[in-house]
Amino acid sequence: MLKLLRIDVEKQHFLFEELSPEYARLGGRALSSSIINREVPPDVDALDPKNKLIFAAGILAGTGFANSSRLSVGSKSPLTGGIKEANAGGNAASNLAKLGIQAVVLEGRATGLTTLKIDADGVSFVDAGPIKGLGNYQVIEDLKKAHGDKVSIVSIGPAGERQLKAASVSVTSPDFYPRMAARGGLGAVMGSKNVKALVIDSKGAKGVEIKDKPLFKAAASKFTKGVLAYPMIEGLNALGTPILVNMINGMGCLPTRNYSVGQFDKAHQISGEHMAELMSKRPNSVPGHKCMTGCVIGCSNVFTDEKGEVIVSGLEYETIVLTGSNCMIDDIDMIAKINWACNDIGVDTMDVGAAIALAMEADILKMGDATGALALVSEIREGTDNGLLIGNGCKVTGERLGSKRIPHVKGQSLAAYDPRGLKGTGTSYATSAMGADHTVGNAIPNPLSQYDPASPKGQAEMSSFLQIYHAAIDSLGICLFASLPALDFADLQGHIVQGVAALYGETLDRDYIKQLGIATLKAEREFNTNAGFTKEDDRLPQFFKDEPLLPSGNVFDVSDEDLDRVNAF
Amino acid sequence: MLKLLRIDVEKQHFLFEELSPEYARLGGRALSSSIINREVPPDVDALDPKNKLIFAAGILAGTGFANSSRLSVGSKSPLTGGIKEANAGGNAASNLAKLGIQAVVLEGRATGLTTLKIDADGVSFVDAGPIKGLGNYQVIEDLKKAHGDKVSIVSIGPAGERQLKAASVSVTSPDFYPRMAARGGLGAVMGSKNVKALVIDSKGAKGVEIKDKPLFKAAASKFTKGVLAYPMIEGLNALGTPILVNMINGMGCLPTRNYSVGQFDKAHQISGEHMAELMSKRPNSVPGHKCMTGCVIGCSNVFTDEKGEVIVSGLEYETIVLTGSNCMIDDIDMIAKINWACNDIGVDTMDVGAAIALAMEADILKMGDATGALALVSEIREGTDNGLLIGNGCKVTGERLGSKRIPHVKGQSLAAYDPRGLKGTGTSYATSAMGADHTVGNAIPNPLSQYDPASPKGQAEMSSFLQIYHAAIDSLGICLFASLPALDFADLQGHIVQGVAALYGETLDRDYIKQLGIATLKAEREFNTNAGFTKEDDRLPQFFKDEPLLPSGNVFDVSDEDLDRVNAF
Repeated sequence: MLKLLRIDVEKQHFLFEELSPEYARLGGRALSSSIINREVPPDVDALDPKNKLIFAAGILAGTGFANSSRLSVGSKSPLTGGIKEANAGGNAASNLAKLGIQAVVLEGRATGLTTLKIDADGVSFVDAGPIKGLGNYQVIEDLKKAHGDKVSIVSIGPAGERQLKAASVSVTSPDFYPRMAARGGLGAVMGSKNVKALVIDSKGAKGVEIKDKPLFKAAASKFTKGVLAYPMIEGLNALGTPILVNMINGMGCLPTRNYSVGQFDKAHQISGEHMAELMSKRPNSVPGHKCMTGCVIGCSNVFTDEKGEVIVSGLEYETIVLTGSNCMIDDIDMIAKINWACNDIGVDTMDVGAAIALAMEADILKMGDATGALALVSEIREGTDNGLLIGNGCKVTGERLGSKRIPHVKGQSLAAYDPRGLKGTGTSYATSAMGADHTVGNAIPNPLSQYDPASPKGQAEMSSFLQIYHAAIDSLGICLFASLPALDFADLQGHIVQGVAALYGETLDRDYIKQLGIATLKAEREFNTNAGFTKEDDRLPQFFKDEPLLPSGNVFDVSDEDLDRVNAF
Repeated sequence: MLKLLRIDVEKQHFLFEELSPEYARLGGRALSSSIINREVPPDVDALDPKNKLIFAAGILAGTGFANSSRLSVGSKSPLTGGIKEANAGGNAASNLAKLGIQAVVLEGRATGLTTLKIDADGVSFVDAGPIKGLGNYQVIEDLKKAHGDKVSIVSIGPAGERQLKAASVSVTSPDFYPRMAARGGLGAVMGSKNVKALVIDSKGAKGVEIKDKPLFKAAASKFTKGVLAYPMIEGLNALGTPILVNMINGMGCLPTRNYSVGQFDKAHQISGEHMAELMSKRPNSVPGHKCMTGCVIGCSNVFTDEKGEVIVSGLEYETIVLTGSNCMIDDIDMIAKINWACNDIGVDTMDVGAAIALAMEADILKMGDATGALALVSEIREGTDNGLLIGNGCKVTGERLGSKRIPHVKGQSLAAYDPRGLKGTGTSYATSAMGADHTVGNAIPNPLSQYDPASPKGQAEMSSFLQIYHAAIDSLGICLFASLPALDFADLQGHIVQGVAALYGETLDRDYIKQLGIATLKAEREFNTNAGFTKEDDRLPQFFKDEPLLPSGNVFDVSDEDLDRVNAF
């Protein structure tokens, strides 16, 4: 059984703790949300030392089960004031599990900026003075030099040190690109703990014990085969998540010009198809890149310039839309540079992209001005007034600038799907304890299904179902794209449950996934209620209800009664 | 030298008249506009017997020069109150020229509904009682039966008989599909003359005399080769004019929801690519169909249903957009049926499509309701209040319904290019004597050129240049698509001039095309000025200046000063 590693960063004390009955058999988001709900005072300020920061490996981490190495980062969010979990790929979760650690719990506040080295010997507290103020890329470079290239590095950039509300947490991929647990300002919590980085080294670790190896192997193998047989996977491998640009634009739901319209006239310029064409001509570009250990899909990329120099990895759909079409920016190379700058500074491209669009609407820079947008992002590093503004995300920026059209729920900006045409996704935006978020329950219609994303009816059911499923998936540590095939092919869910049962050497309820998801959502809901959230917080901004989304003319018209049914477990 | 055939339909008298010096060497639009300007009192009501209706063959008609058989129909327009020329393919112009007729001039009003039979013997006046009230398809069928399948038939449907302002004139293709001289309500003028049809039979005609045959042959051959070598021609042949749907949608300039937005989320469903896919599976569908004698391109189609029954031929871009995306209708089969109904009733799909969108905005039927739209078009035939309303076109419909967003200039509805993103086209819409029209000077950017269609600057020059060119092309009888290659490859213009010179056995000025165009535009401008038009009529509706076109945010901001420079010859 894996353990909790509690680290009191103030006292430089650490403790390996057996999972108490409340936390037993949990991992990933389920575990981090349970810990936050049970241990963090709901009314504490998110940047107070009494808040805790959790790094939880998923239930299947380190086992070799396909695509199950997501690392959940959890805390009370400085952006939303509610409970938060954001996860990223990389190999940190796998290394933690191999070290026998289900989750690391950071408590207190270090007196000086600190790097935590976690290995088979326990925890070392290293002075982070030499890397203070550095961007994530340099931090990774320096720590790799110091600790070797077998480690995982979790770090924050200048935005996290500044405790800005859109600050992200970086987790390295196996080839040392930063991947982001971007949402909810968890980098600011890490900054508030005066922790610059974690270095996780699994050398000498005993690995994860699987109780019934033959059964596990059979389940894992069937799951992998099922994922690879799923029709969409080939396209994801070839074009990555940017495959969605033309799809969602074609549906008229691509956030454009601060959610003013659902299609972008320059969509082709920022599409996966166009990127693939560019990458085929550019040296060193890598389509089908794998962001984490054990990935069998490869939906990421390494995006290079014409000379073959890496601009960023990976350049993903949400970033492309929020810093691209939503800001009327059509230059994919500039978007990639903005992405790099956000990664280096350590901010969420989505909340910052939404903030830039608001700054454009307020004439701080011109709509579509890519050079200006990149310069504005760089100002976060410099700490100018405008830099600090957008570094605090879309809500703070919009309120400061007097915007009447701030696309956020519970303080977190919306993702790259307009909720007026995709009302199931809109229902998830509204009702998730996480604030507006696409990974909690994104209802993209399958061409073969009868699901109508534009109907006001039936969205509560669709969103509830997906929120439960994805809460479980986030707890298992499985990536979103490996989880999609199991939505259409129910036998794949059986293979997941069988894999966990084999890992534990136990029989699991056939409703295991549903129960895991519901327990997670309940804990999150309970924390938020105790923190003062009411059903009035489960609403989309008024303009999505009033302004028809052209061309469809759709408004978000899922009833409040339906929204209130989503979390009625 | 070809002659004028003047027909006094009231007195049942006809006269072959030598072309007077003012009309000599003119044809097509140049000739019809000159006749209107010199002979029609500018303040006469368009439906008064004193108005004249001209059917003019282009200068190159009947010679075998590629794509030069357009028939110009001209008159004072009941829709705009100004001068009007609309042209169509088919083989009527070719047959007229072979009969030695450069243009037919209809004068007066017949006492009973009449069919005019024009052949080598002159004109016969045939009682049209048996075909009164019939749609164009039945009229064509009946007249073909009576006069054989070597004739050309020019006819009106019930809308023309009712003298509705959006009534069109039908001209048969070589395979007896109706092609439409659709714009400006010229069908109503024909109806006001109590003429149901012209049957043109060139049997026994002596044909067109070409003065220098070897030179002509050389010029015609080089022109054909040049046209066929033009890069866009292959796409036009494969997909037809609907190739523009995805192109213009991608540019964010596709009229959608009564010109509310520049992209349609269901554009793929009505695109040339989708049509080609459907047609490849449907029996009897014909891509690359030729609408007229001597065509070397083949950009039309015969669009059939799944069983192979013809729905309509040809289903073209402007129709698809005005009755499709602009009404939020995404069912290409329903659009084809609406097209058929408009052709049969004899109304312009564009003005009627624009009127339907206004009726949808006014909740007479639901936005996107294809079945309702088809039923509404059918009401034109029945003569219900709503039918008569939309049969009178977009301006009458919008004013009657109290719309503040009526997309028209000089009473004629805009074409399928939003002027806010395509400002050269918008400048042509505003300043043409014809009212809003795409064929007079459509400035679609060539990917290779430096032309910026969204700039407020330089559009007067672009529009002036194109209006002069297309006025000449319409006078030569050459189709728009054969004329485009000559815009990019100037030597092709030389071949056209050489062809005309060889036809006449004369030397022509190297500025021949420009002079022909300017003379035509001057005549049209003069008529309109005398009819009371001022520069205030050369403006787009206010909403194109006030409402930003999403997503680009463009407004139409070409200055009034620039618009007033367009016609300052």
